[in-house]
Amino acid sequence: MSLFDYQHFFTNELAQLHREGRYRVFADLEREPESDIYAFDHRTRRRVTIWCSNDYLSMGVHPEVIGAAREALEQYGAGAGGTRNISGTSHEHVLLEQELADLHRKQSALLFTSGYVANDAAIATLGRLLPGCMIFSDALNHASMIEGIRHSGADKCVFAHNDWRDLERKLASVCKYRPKLICFESCYSMDGDFAPMEAICDLAGKYNAFTYVDEVHAVGLYGARGAGIAERDGLLDRIDMFQGTLSKGFGAIGGYIAGSHDAVDYVRSFAPGFIFSTALPPSVVAGIRAALRHLKEDGSARQALARRAASLKERLLANAIPVLPSPSHILPVMIGDAALAKAITDHLMTEHGIYIQPVNYPTVPRGTERLRVTPTPLHTDEDEDALIAALIATREAFPRWREIMDSARPEAVPELAG
Amino acid sequence: MSLFDYQHFFTNELAQLHREGRYRVFADLEREPESDIYAFDHRTRRRVTIWCSNDYLSMGVHPEVIGAAREALEQYGAGAGGTRNISGTSHEHVLLEQELADLHRKQSALLFTSGYVANDAAIATLGRLLPGCMIFSDALNHASMIEGIRHSGADKCVFAHNDWRDLERKLASVCKYRPKLICFESCYSMDGDFAPMEAICDLAGKYNAFTYVDEVHAVGLYGARGAGIAERDGLLDRIDMFQGTLSKGFGAIGGYIAGSHDAVDYVRSFAPGFIFSTALPPSVVAGIRAALRHLKEDGSARQALARRAASLKERLLANAIPVLPSPSHILPVMIGDAALAKAITDHLMTEHGIYIQPVNYPTVPRGTERLRVTPTPLHTDEDEDALIAALIATREAFPRWREIMDSARPEAVPELAG
Ligand SMILES: Cc1ncc(COP(=O)(O)O)c(C=O)c1O
Ligand SMILES: Cc1ncc(COP(=O)(O)O)c(C=O)c1O
Repeated sequence: MSLFDYQHFFTNELAQLHREGRYRVFADLEREPESDIYAFDHRTRRRVTIWCSNDYLSMGVHPEVIGAAREALEQYGAGAGGTRNISGTSHEHVLLEQELADLHRKQSALLFTSGYVANDAAIATLGRLLPGCMIFSDALNHASMIEGIRHSGADKCVFAHNDWRDLERKLASVCKYRPKLICFESCYSMDGDFAPMEAICDLAGKYNAFTYVDEVHAVGLYGARGAGIAERDGLLDRIDMFQGTLSKGFGAIGGYIAGSHDAVDYVRSFAPGFIFSTALPPSVVAGIRAALRHLKEDGSARQALARRAASLKERLLANAIPVLPSPSHILPVMIGDAALAKAITDHLMTEHGIYIQPVNYPTVPRGTERLRVTPTPLHTDEDEDALIAALIATREAFPRWREIMDSARPEAVPELAG
Repeated sequence: MSLFDYQHFFTNELAQLHREGRYRVFADLEREPESDIYAFDHRTRRRVTIWCSNDYLSMGVHPEVIGAAREALEQYGAGAGGTRNISGTSHEHVLLEQELADLHRKQSALLFTSGYVANDAAIATLGRLLPGCMIFSDALNHASMIEGIRHSGADKCVFAHNDWRDLERKLASVCKYRPKLICFESCYSMDGDFAPMEAICDLAGKYNAFTYVDEVHAVGLYGARGAGIAERDGLLDRIDMFQGTLSKGFGAIGGYIAGSHDAVDYVRSFAPGFIFSTALPPSVVAGIRAALRHLKEDGSARQALARRAASLKERLLANAIPVLPSPSHILPVMIGDAALAKAITDHLMTEHGIYIQPVNYPTVPRGTERLRVTPTPLHTDEDEDALIAALIATREAFPRWREIMDSARPEAVPELAG
């Protein structure tokens, strides 16, 4: 037996990813000035249109946002200078937390360096410290929630995706005196479907559970002021804790939770992932605050996105491109094979100047590999025409795509309208 | 028995923190334009001098940094638009990773949203996936490493702080075929002391261990090009993986690892905390790159900081202020009691306009509560005079401080020179 060879181990494991077609190659993009969707791709050396951005409302390039961020950058510099506790809390942080609390109609909000850290830190802290806590988790929850649950060390019970009847069976089977945390998303990132939020809130009331909802893909996008699905559905006061990101609908980076004063203060006081990490730069925070204020008042970006998503969905379906008929702005075009998904997206990039990243395991289950198409308010009718034409041409170039779809497991095949 | 009362639970736990004097109240600062160290404090409503910033070299307000960040902000907007894999990799990210690899003389580097996430994600991934891995961890490692180790699920063995003899005993006791990870810091954040890096590297060679070092409090600050203690001590090629932050010496936010191509690629490919989180904004990345380039070429900020730290340390000791005689730029002034530390820093803030945050449990062990004083190149001689005078006056105002110091456990009492 020889000593462990670290380099050999890493090299071998990477070779395995290559063999499975799962090795991730990052794009190397240089966006055009003030544009969220056109970029120069340094690898193919061509101009591309981005169709997979999560800056859903193009707030990242909104003049009010850039202006506020620039002003704060010039005033306060590039960084916060410390953790929130040790010199890192600026007045900008205080104001943004107030804006976020107001957005969700809660007493309090707390910023984190990312939506991932918000989930990981908040769920791990609640699950670990609530005595004897049991966590009920939707089967399709995001990795950051799954890690938070794992890190809590609490007992975990996974309920079938969006199946509140299954959730009820599971809630009913647990001692009624135990603290219970229900963790779910309002809009699921990979399928683009919505949670049955009202039914879940009813169950939480009935079984005395604490509701924790990730509105990452909904904040900014849904509801009259952009607070998400809970606002749209009139359920703001029935959710105990909201979690959101500042990197998608709000166009920058960061995450947060919102809830009652003491619940939020509790996480603030006990979560290592919050306490021991440098705060977001004040300039980033100022840009986000401008985005938030804008989206509370002005629904035009939301409406433009909804129109673009609806027309694109209709044309994908009409052209028999296998899109999941999601009710949201997220349009999953199914492929069903990792290597094929990679080949198709390479083809779209090099032949058509269309950048869509393939999504494969572990982000989605094997056999449900997909293109996750996300429109923005900045995409034009011409961009849409070009995308549809490129997808049709690509389908012809890759007959295996249709074969896989024809033979795929039912859950991977959308019901096509046309 | 009644149902679990969530609000009651949170309120009670917070009350306990209040009783222990450990409840954290954040400052609410508004820094003056282009100044890293003077601010308006919204709570006391007075101008204060910050003496606890981690923007050690004041790079956050360096004109080259702000200029580069502003240009990228105007060009690319406020956010990255996605995870690194899904539309979030800009050319700026690619270039910064090259700069960081070059800084540490390694093949590759990888950005994370924070230094905390870099530690948590990298250590958890290595510890979980290296088969049968045993992790050797310095007793004073930072919370982010401790969490990474916990999250790895690997066996863990804590060695006495900076005690390589203890480390050797522990390495020798473990099966020689097992993968072994040695995790330590080069400069410890709370005591300001340095690791015996060469001795640890020798042991790693002897026992075939993989060395992982957190240079968070050293990058930018030590070594001819600012690569940290490994550079200063000529050990760059003997460390397997470096971890650093972009929020302290480099003045912004973010973290990274650097190592061999395949080791870094392995973490890139398997760490959920990297994969499933939105990338840093290109504008933040551009600012950091400017800081890095500046600090590689120009040692003047490093020298100014070293001069200020030396003179301050000398005067603290000469005035019998109980500072740990640390060899670094971090000056821990010991208090030894949480409530007293809070009272003293409140007094410094309201009476003297000096902002130093108390550091207490769990950041440091109970009984070793302290003020962690950190100078910067921007502090003037007048600022230093004012700080010394304020500390002397405060010591007179709080006789209990001296009593505790006189009766404290030896490890909490610095050996005073004067
Ligand atoms: C559902 C969900 N929650 C949380 C996150 C993490 O948010 P962030 O990118 O701000 O870390 C993501 C993806 O990025 C997500 O899709
Ligand atoms: C030793 C050490 N490692 C890691 C971190 C985390 O780095 P960041 O603030 O970039 O999250 C810190 C503190 O902030 C630290 O002191």
